[in-house]
Amino acid sequence: MHIAILLFDRFTALDAIGPYEVLSRLPDAETVFVGERTGPVFNEVGTLHLVADATLADVPRPDIVVVPGGPGQTAHMSDGPVHQWLRAADKTSTWTTSVCTGSLILAAAGLLTGRRATSHWLALDQLPAWGVTPTSERVIIDSKYVTAAGVSSGIDMALNLAGRIAGDGVAETIQLGIEYDPQPPYDAGTPDKAPADIVSNLRARSRFILERPVA
Amino acid sequence: MHIAILLFDRFTALDAIGPYEVLSRLPDAETVFVGERTGPVFNEVGTLHLVADATLADVPRPDIVVVPGGPGQTAHMSDGPVHQWLRAADKTSTWTTSVCTGSLILAAAGLLTGRRATSHWLALDQLPAWGVTPTSERVIIDSKYVTAAGVSSGIDMALNLAGRIAGDGVAETIQLGIEYDPQPPYDAGTPDKAPADIVSNLRARSRFILERPVA
Repeated sequence: MHIAILLFDRFTALDAIGPYEVLSRLPDAETVFVGERTGPVFNEVGTLHLVADATLADVPRPDIVVVPGGPGQTAHMSDGPVHQWLRAADKTSTWTTSVCTGSLILAAAGLLTGRRATSHWLALDQLPAWGVTPTSERVIIDSKYVTAAGVSSGIDMALNLAGRIAGDGVAETIQLGIEYDPQPPYDAGTPDKAPADIVSNLRARSRFILERPVA
Repeated sequence: MHIAILLFDRFTALDAIGPYEVLSRLPDAETVFVGERTGPVFNEVGTLHLVADATLADVPRPDIVVVPGGPGQTAHMSDGPVHQWLRAADKTSTWTTSVCTGSLILAAAGLLTGRRATSHWLALDQLPAWGVTPTSERVIIDSKYVTAAGVSSGIDMALNLAGRIAGDGVAETIQLGIEYDPQPPYDAGTPDKAPADIVSNLRARSRFILERPVA
């Protein structure tokens, strides 16, 4: 099972690594980070570099496609190598997935038209522009298209996917292996739960948010 | 505020990236990945490379030290450059932290002697060898030493730390920014919660676990 995780400059690290850490533990998984070029790809802050080990052309037919989000998403909203690769890979993929604003890239590539999808809560309202029904849930599975909400939700997305691919026992084994028993010290993970002033402050800065969530 | 995240060959990616994604969003945070050498450092599976941008010597006095775990931890259990750097950095650090089996490295370097600490549930029983009291909780804060349980717990650890460093409002803003409202599809994240056969299977393979949790 070939899993391709797309990297692009100014991606959000956890968007990519959450699903990686789960999906790479599936039996027979072969995971590869792909980019327009091989070599280091920097994240939104520029203080983290992941290495793309393959070009898009090197990985034409992955079984699973994972598209992370991050402010660099804005560079991939019109037709180009990434969209062309996504549309071609999607023809044969078993699952086409995204985390955070990665769903905007899938949408702009035309892959989510007429479907339900989620995204980072600050980006949900952008989905209808591509004929996608925004759905404020943590993980949306619509046919083979699996989209996750913001950043950390990729872990939950990947565990859902692991269960569907390999069965509940394997997914639970992975959950136990990564000791995923979350205990956030606050209950502020969604706009419904966070203090109103924090939500409004973050929303007011939302044009910066997609640049950098916290200044 | 300088935050140094240690990289070593065969680290576990999420151990490092969970705290990175949270702590790098703190106001005035400067985060750097440090290694014995600069350049790509591969994770336990060998399919992911993060780049170390600085050597240990380049970052002698970080304010926060983060030590991830992973099977490569076993190469850093005796005195050497990593221990020497940790002991020196710890003299001036505000917080010395670990995720997963990273606590074994801190313990072996002599930094947790007489303290309470946690680790990956499969590694907890190794802590007493260095005079450390193993404590089966997700995050343990003992003075300036903050240790987290397995892999995914680094996110919770870092949010706890963010609150202590910058206040609850900043930590909640970060939580909202990364939309950390975890919804695992299973409740199998600890040995107490997972099905008994899954726990015993994983424990039986535990010498492989620290090599690779799921084959």
